[in-house]
Amino acid sequence: MTRPRHRTPTQSPPTASPFRVLRNPFPPTEVLDPDAVHAIHHASLRVLEETGVDFWDAETLSLLKTAGVKVDEKARHAWLDRAWVMEMVGKAPAQFTLHSWNPAKNVPVGGNHLLYAPVGGPPFVTDLDRGRRDGNMADVQTLNKLVQMADAMVIGGGHLIEPLDVEVPIRHLETMFYDLTLIDKAPQSTVLGQIAAQDSITMVALAHAGGAATVADALAGIRHKPAVLGVINVNSPLRYDGPMLEGLLALAQHGQVPVLTPFIIVGANSPITLPAAIMQQNAEVLAGAALVQFVNPGCPVVYGHFITPLDLRSGAVPFGTPEEVWAVFAAAQMARFYHLPFRGGGGLTTAQIPDAQAAYESTFGLWAATMAHSNLILQGAGWLDGGLVASFEKFVLDVEVIERFDAFLQERPIDAETLAAEFIHQVGPGGHHLDTAHTMARYRTAFHHSELSSRLSHGAWVEQGEQDTAQRANRKWKEMVARYTPPPMEQAVVEALLDYKERRKEVLLK
Amino acid sequence: MTRPRHRTPTQSPPTASPFRVLRNPFPPTEVLDPDAVHAIHHASLRVLEETGVDFWDAETLSLLKTAGVKVDEKARHAWLDRAWVMEMVGKAPAQFTLHSWNPAKNVPVGGNHLLYAPVGGPPFVTDLDRGRRDGNMADVQTLNKLVQMADAMVIGGGHLIEPLDVEVPIRHLETMFYDLTLIDKAPQSTVLGQIAAQDSITMVALAHAGGAATVADALAGIRHKPAVLGVINVNSPLRYDGPMLEGLLALAQHGQVPVLTPFIIVGANSPITLPAAIMQQNAEVLAGAALVQFVNPGCPVVYGHFITPLDLRSGAVPFGTPEEVWAVFAAAQMARFYHLPFRGGGGLTTAQIPDAQAAYESTFGLWAATMAHSNLILQGAGWLDGGLVASFEKFVLDVEVIERFDAFLQERPIDAETLAAEFIHQVGPGGHHLDTAHTMARYRTAFHHSELSSRLSHGAWVEQGEQDTAQRANRKWKEMVARYTPPPMEQAVVEALLDYKERRKEVLLK
Repeated sequence: MTRPRHRTPTQSPPTASPFRVLRNPFPPTEVLDPDAVHAIHHASLRVLEETGVDFWDAETLSLLKTAGVKVDEKARHAWLDRAWVMEMVGKAPAQFTLHSWNPAKNVPVGGNHLLYAPVGGPPFVTDLDRGRRDGNMADVQTLNKLVQMADAMVIGGGHLIEPLDVEVPIRHLETMFYDLTLIDKAPQSTVLGQIAAQDSITMVALAHAGGAATVADALAGIRHKPAVLGVINVNSPLRYDGPMLEGLLALAQHGQVPVLTPFIIVGANSPITLPAAIMQQNAEVLAGAALVQFVNPGCPVVYGHFITPLDLRSGAVPFGTPEEVWAVFAAAQMARFYHLPFRGGGGLTTAQIPDAQAAYESTFGLWAATMAHSNLILQGAGWLDGGLVASFEKFVLDVEVIERFDAFLQERPIDAETLAAEFIHQVGPGGHHLDTAHTMARYRTAFHHSELSSRLSHGAWVEQGEQDTAQRANRKWKEMVARYTPPPMEQAVVEALLDYKERRKEVLLK
Repeated sequence: MTRPRHRTPTQSPPTASPFRVLRNPFPPTEVLDPDAVHAIHHASLRVLEETGVDFWDAETLSLLKTAGVKVDEKARHAWLDRAWVMEMVGKAPAQFTLHSWNPAKNVPVGGNHLLYAPVGGPPFVTDLDRGRRDGNMADVQTLNKLVQMADAMVIGGGHLIEPLDVEVPIRHLETMFYDLTLIDKAPQSTVLGQIAAQDSITMVALAHAGGAATVADALAGIRHKPAVLGVINVNSPLRYDGPMLEGLLALAQHGQVPVLTPFIIVGANSPITLPAAIMQQNAEVLAGAALVQFVNPGCPVVYGHFITPLDLRSGAVPFGTPEEVWAVFAAAQMARFYHLPFRGGGGLTTAQIPDAQAAYESTFGLWAATMAHSNLILQGAGWLDGGLVASFEKFVLDVEVIERFDAFLQERPIDAETLAAEFIHQVGPGGHHLDTAHTMARYRTAFHHSELSSRLSHGAWVEQGEQDTAQRANRKWKEMVARYTPPPMEQAVVEALLDYKERRKEVLLK
């Protein structure tokens, strides 16, 4: 592992395209009518009251008891009263700012803002040159660089690839170090267990604090400054397990952002009907959101969603399905009903390679995310093979799709200038507009320009080697890595992070 | 060319999936607010009044004069008063039934019905086995068979591929013969010039009339029974040329369906701003719709749309762009404003092969069509290379994408049965739903099943030959051709069509 070289802050980084968060100015696509939203809401609350939720963590159960919640400590189970749940959920902010250590990359979470983030978690990595291989730290760093270079990614990493060449107890230290030093976009944190969560949040705090701060001061500095996301998966149905609850509590106690995400395989860990999956997920999210608000009222929390069908005829779990699209739209409506920011949709696929299937499946998922007004689009670029593989070419392909949504979502005012009636009149029937003043003033920036898509004639395409999209994506990610420049982190901060990481490695490897 | 063998009507055809027209039960995606729609409307009417439209056809100019329209016959130009235009356009039906000679395949045009149709017009054809080649009659027949076999296609052919091995004056006869005898879905007609339009409409009429009818009786039989679509392109800006007007008049006089479609390359034959392109297109469509209604009040007419940007930096005309998506949504809103059925969107791409680019570009176009409530989605399956090439593999790929929209658009009632609260309670936290009565009753049909997408594990995928989507599509179209059975047309009707075709060929080749 090479140590990143850093510019001093006086050197300004070369300007890429300006950092910019997409907004969807159009009304969200909705698949539920208001009655349906209410029916799901009430059925969820009844599940929380009558069926209840497992919380496999003693500290959580004791906190819930303090709150007056009916708890069975032996069964590690609680029944949540609807009035209490709704009171707690009502304390969560509808929108908040997620801070990066580089304030130029702070982003708003909520409303109609769309924040796309890269793939996270695959144990394998692949590219056209070297094929499929175990996840490793060198590839994590390459993917970090791609995330930094891609304007479409406004959230940074968090265990982009599982580095199997690093020992398990210290993986979170290595990945967080490079997530913070190679990228200046707000990171995601590993939150499986108290140790990983506490270390990760501390490193984020140190990145914000500058070189000289103590850990305690650094943590105090982000207490009211959300600076890291942590995906808290629910062990569906209706169970929060121990390590995830430790992560949830650590995030909440430090004022950081739990992204409460049930992982529902419809027909396996929920009933096989999509409305039931949405309803069960809603109950699970509300339970977690209430807990977070009890621990730290006003702490940001995100309504997460991950629902995919089970193909019971083959046993396969497909991704990028039409059912997923419906579920994203429905879940986003539920999140809006509670005024919670929403995470859902992404570039998911079961395809093995970045081919047509990968493209149509991921485009469906990114369309759903975009048109649902999904605020956090995690797993937005680079995912293949049901999430088992991170692909550099697929990353480029997904970024292209997101850039197309960007171009679509431009606000286009309708006024005398854009209607250009005088030019239509001047040019007249049968004429052309190629060289009008109206055209000349606009042609360079009028339309989306794609570096990935081929617009060559057949002859020129043959002459240039009959490359397919994956081959062009291969060339593009290498260019991006070659053009990479590190973000402007002060050397003292890099040293502080390195120091923390190395000290903690010694402790954890003892 | 082999002559199709036909079943007698007493033999019922083997049942494939039931013939079914998609509906979009969700609100359409809208990109214009009501003020913007009005601004475009008024600006268009002003263009019609002040700039006017070229009509390069003496009969049309004389008809317009009869209507009291201000005409300059020498300049072949007319200025259309807004009151007259709106009065005429108001006579067009908001919805109508398009009839097939097999009444089981009649389809509703308008409302939230989505009718997908295949590619039309490419001079080249390609598949993975034989590569790119000139369009020819054998390949036209193969594509006809695929259209008949694909449930996603509910409109039939119309010059699916340009058969360069057939002499130009008789191409319309050969293609219409196979469009009518190999497919029992309502056809599209070649309408370039009076001869082609009249022959095509006559053949459709004969297919409806049964074997013994005279041409005059057959034509009278469809006078109030829309049975064929004809795409009337406007030679933008603001010009209807001679052959297209002959086609328009023939369709209107016989009560058939002009699909009025400007072909706008934004920045070339319209101003470079998308609102201007939408406004100019609106003027062009209104001019044609008014003419159709004057010729035959109440005749069905479709508001057509085809807008794509020009990349002025490279000179390329890309397809499947984000600008296209915005324009489809905007144009659909204009069509709804006039209560006219809408044609727009499709599976367009500039890609040379059925790879990732082809998939993401076409998925964007099909998404736009579907979510805009586009009633006619022509060029919906099989298009490659900016429309120069029809690809059998791309046809299969687009059909897969349309089937995914079908699964997404299912109405999913929210009620006690679908919310399944009792099963969530019964299974409880940490349990599974794999074998509940609720799951067992539904698992076979709960979810979209894809024959094209791979859901294999990596190992199984490698073992089965590492096929990409295009290779799987290749296998699939061959299976479809192998399974093809002709529709139940009476032999006497086939003979009547053959007889008409051969007689007309003799006349036209003299």
